[in-house]
Amino acid sequence: MTPSNPHSRTQLVAGAADMIRRRGLNATSIREVAKHAKAPLGSTYHYFPGGKQQLATEAVRFAGDTVARMLRTELEAGAVGGLRAFLTLWRGILTDTGFRAGCPVLAVSVEEPAEDASAVLQAAAEAFAGWETLLAETLERDGVPSAEAGQLATLIVAAAEGAVAMARAQRSTKPLDQVAARLEALLKASTVDD
Amino acid sequence: MTPSNPHSRTQLVAGAADMIRRRGLNATSIREVAKHAKAPLGSTYHYFPGGKQQLATEAVRFAGDTVARMLRTELEAGAVGGLRAFLTLWRGILTDTGFRAGCPVLAVSVEEPAEDASAVLQAAAEAFAGWETLLAETLERDGVPSAEAGQLATLIVAAAEGAVAMARAQRSTKPLDQVAARLEALLKASTVDD
Repeated sequence: MTPSNPHSRTQLVAGAADMIRRRGLNATSIREVAKHAKAPLGSTYHYFPGGKQQLATEAVRFAGDTVARMLRTELEAGAVGGLRAFLTLWRGILTDTGFRAGCPVLAVSVEEPAEDASAVLQAAAEAFAGWETLLAETLERDGVPSAEAGQLATLIVAAAEGAVAMARAQRSTKPLDQVAARLEALLKASTVDD
Repeated sequence: MTPSNPHSRTQLVAGAADMIRRRGLNATSIREVAKHAKAPLGSTYHYFPGGKQQLATEAVRFAGDTVARMLRTELEAGAVGGLRAFLTLWRGILTDTGFRAGCPVLAVSVEEPAEDASAVLQAAAEAFAGWETLLAETLERDGVPSAEAGQLATLIVAAAEGAVAMARAQRSTKPLDQVAARLEALLKASTVDD
């Protein structure tokens, strides 16, 4: 077994996303990410010459893209199927980590940005917008009028993100379950696909 | 003019809540709160012998109670009026601070707690639950069946909190506006008070 550089760039990005979704951006350091990923510190500076802000920006994009890929697949079955998969994803993250991890996109959005953190916030804005667009397009395809579809899509993303935070505080999936029940009823009343 | 202790306990608690809603819990220190409130550092240790965790716990309770008091008053006009006031409160905080401040209850909920931070999380859980209860009671009074009222109340709190985070990332009130439009339509369809 050769231990030669098993720590790819992607592993560091995924490690940073995991650390940010657990403890937030301010409490995440390049040093800790390298330690967490069992990578030499030098390799992180090699891969991310822009330092913590570059790594965090890529981590947020990575998380945004991962969720978007899942959403795109699950939405093929319609808006209700996509909604269920979206909320099931968050429920799994919460229960798998004893409510210690949430969403890295949310985490970076609620901390006053450092002077050079505008790229991180921009990545978060794009991640949210990407999920909203996927949901809105499916809702429209399922027969919801355009303006209402956009509002519903934002409501779904906002409610899921808020419920993840509430679930972490309450150490219970109940907020997600409540939101899931109401949103599902709402989608079934608004769409014609279920 | 005597400079004798103009910095009451409450001012320090409010200052801590403001710092937490801007930058999160990990990046908030007692030293910074004292500086922010222009209070001598010694007075913070005098008032809060339990240190940062005690101050943060009281800050979260203070924010939770402030919002609950406003909600209780505004809900007297019915669920739709309460919803509008709740979302208007968050919109005002965002626009007054150039999207740099959000909700301190949300902020402490999305950071992995320090070893002694269970009291802070507990305070956050209670704040969320308090807002949910006030909304659910009004919805029931307005004719919404009990189970649905509970789900709707959680949906409102979760969506508002999530939309605040999305608005900070997107530097726009659009997420709150979208959520407001959809939730208001939903409440009008569910209740008989409007």
